[in-house]
Amino acid sequence: MSSPPVARPDEVRRHNRTTLLRLLHVGGPSTRAALATELGLNRSTIKTLVDGLAEAGVVEEKVPRPGRGAGRPSLLVLPQPHAAVVLAVDLQVEHVAIALVGLGGQILGRNSWNLHARTRTADEVITHVIESTRVLAGDLGVEPVAAGVSVPGVVRRADGLVHEAPNLRWTDVALGDRLSAVLRIPVLVANDAELGAVAEHLRGAARGSSDSVYVSADVGVGGGVISQGSSLRGGAGYVGEIGHMAIRPGGRACYCGSRGCWETEIGEAALCRALGLPEDTPRGVILVELRELGLDADAAASRLAEYAEWLTLGLVNVVNLLGPELVVLGDLLTVLPESVMRAVAEEVRGRSLVSRAAGGTRIVSSALGADVKLLGAAEVAFEVVLDTV
Amino acid sequence: MSSPPVARPDEVRRHNRTTLLRLLHVGGPSTRAALATELGLNRSTIKTLVDGLAEAGVVEEKVPRPGRGAGRPSLLVLPQPHAAVVLAVDLQVEHVAIALVGLGGQILGRNSWNLHARTRTADEVITHVIESTRVLAGDLGVEPVAAGVSVPGVVRRADGLVHEAPNLRWTDVALGDRLSAVLRIPVLVANDAELGAVAEHLRGAARGSSDSVYVSADVGVGGGVISQGSSLRGGAGYVGEIGHMAIRPGGRACYCGSRGCWETEIGEAALCRALGLPEDTPRGVILVELRELGLDADAAASRLAEYAEWLTLGLVNVVNLLGPELVVLGDLLTVLPESVMRAVAEEVRGRSLVSRAAGGTRIVSSALGADVKLLGAAEVAFEVVLDTV
Repeated sequence: MSSPPVARPDEVRRHNRTTLLRLLHVGGPSTRAALATELGLNRSTIKTLVDGLAEAGVVEEKVPRPGRGAGRPSLLVLPQPHAAVVLAVDLQVEHVAIALVGLGGQILGRNSWNLHARTRTADEVITHVIESTRVLAGDLGVEPVAAGVSVPGVVRRADGLVHEAPNLRWTDVALGDRLSAVLRIPVLVANDAELGAVAEHLRGAARGSSDSVYVSADVGVGGGVISQGSSLRGGAGYVGEIGHMAIRPGGRACYCGSRGCWETEIGEAALCRALGLPEDTPRGVILVELRELGLDADAAASRLAEYAEWLTLGLVNVVNLLGPELVVLGDLLTVLPESVMRAVAEEVRGRSLVSRAAGGTRIVSSALGADVKLLGAAEVAFEVVLDTV
Repeated sequence: MSSPPVARPDEVRRHNRTTLLRLLHVGGPSTRAALATELGLNRSTIKTLVDGLAEAGVVEEKVPRPGRGAGRPSLLVLPQPHAAVVLAVDLQVEHVAIALVGLGGQILGRNSWNLHARTRTADEVITHVIESTRVLAGDLGVEPVAAGVSVPGVVRRADGLVHEAPNLRWTDVALGDRLSAVLRIPVLVANDAELGAVAEHLRGAARGSSDSVYVSADVGVGGGVISQGSSLRGGAGYVGEIGHMAIRPGGRACYCGSRGCWETEIGEAALCRALGLPEDTPRGVILVELRELGLDADAAASRLAEYAEWLTLGLVNVVNLLGPELVVLGDLLTVLPESVMRAVAEEVRGRSLVSRAAGGTRIVSSALGADVKLLGAAEVAFEVVLDTV
């Protein structure tokens, strides 16, 4: 209910240009006619805007493949990937991936490396990210104009301070400022699950839905919320920490200071315990175990019964509190046996008041696989450059 | 990340007028100079807008009381309550209140009556609301131009369908459509806790904060979320149901089909159990008991220990999931012994990762007392009329 900024006529034109560019960037190539309909602008305004963008080399117009209908084909407007390139960084506990992403969302090139105790320090990571970016940008002959960084921790969006990334053992790292000072471009740092939600919303399983929640279980458990088409963000720039919902009173102690957090009950260590594996079992072994278990629905139901119950309880809470149209599950939650996931989804719908009211919340798997956070990181970077392209 | 509607020059003027009116409506009387600063418009634009509103009788300009400073006093622009009057209805389980509220938020007149089993049916309530509104409007000589209705249940905002109001025993009541058909004005129906959040945000304890959560415990437990200045609303128009967060695995059966919901652990019945009273103890008796208990901090801590723990756990989850700057507690939560509430707030801050990151979430009592939902209902009605005044 806050007042939207008051638009002045001279701002309208730029606003329209940015809106059109965002539409092409997210939605892909489109005809002038479709753009006019989508934006509610008349064709002459669209023509002026597209001509301006084409002259600046930001879009190109092409005749679509023939045979798509009778009459003269409408020209397709295509975003030009090299017109704006951003750096995306996906910082995980055991792995860092970087990519240069062009306008339209195409990954132009990428690089990645593993982390271990010695290379997991903020200094090491920052140095390596900067060096790799320079090499990659040199190889591709492009210069990123902004960067987005995904971090598994509590992040202050305003300045990119990583307040606490417990699984990395980082505390109060000025990641955004430090990268920005060297790379000399705006650097947006965000929580990984928030970026997962953004990516699935714009390019993945939650596309077309304005209200979705992304939940991912890895070493940590996190969630991101899209509400009425935008990222939900708490006060002081901190997003919510779904993984630290207290789900099991008196449960295991969590590093966060609370007990029985959702993360302690459905994170990677909990899954290992459920499978009868040591908590530090390598990911590859967990995957093999899950694949085998998936062949026997009865065994899966019984061995994962308790794990599934905590997963269900947390999802009921997510649905009842946030009322999403759909929940997208990521990381480890996409490799659980299908029979177990079907049963969990069914239970969540049956036990959630809001799901019943809304006619059944959909619960689906991530559509973007391992790139989800990289793509989300790219999008927050594009968000700050689209109006300057 | 959805595209905002594209503004055309001819829409800008009306938008500015509505924004100015909203500022006066929520913020109260203001000078032209202050309005210009707040809206970022120049003084001649403000003059045109204020002159237009004054001519239409929507605002009046007055010389403020003398002695407030040197020099010629700046004229105060005052919203005129009778320029737009809305109907507000607060439907509770045992009580209905209606009010006619003028531009600026002043209650011009009100009426209320108790509900019991026979008068709690949708037909009875709708008939009584319509009759009382006619009488009240006649007495005051005003005509409401829109209505807002607060309902303790799951409501679809788009058409005012009350999907489920279990404590009223209502299911699928087309409340909005039915009231609107007879009163012949737009009728907005909303969940009571959402309206509590709106009212506290605009006129109460959460004023000035863009991210707050309102939690109230009465017969039911509900919550409303303000995120970046707006009501958080789930998909399909359903808001979240904080009261049905599963907080106690294997706990008491809740009417919603789940077990151990927050509502079953901190609602009025749970408070009665904690106090050793029958679950249907009248509210007056509960209040007397709490007042007495408040005189002995040790006794309060011990008798309410378990109740306080469930309250704490739920609040930790609310803070960790939603990351608000402050949490406003309403209804029964405002009359718990002060020592208990201080301890709960302390625990929530200590046990919530997000609160620690954000430097401590404030937890405060409602500032609007019994009128909170009535005022919230008025505001959703004003939301649809301010651009037509």
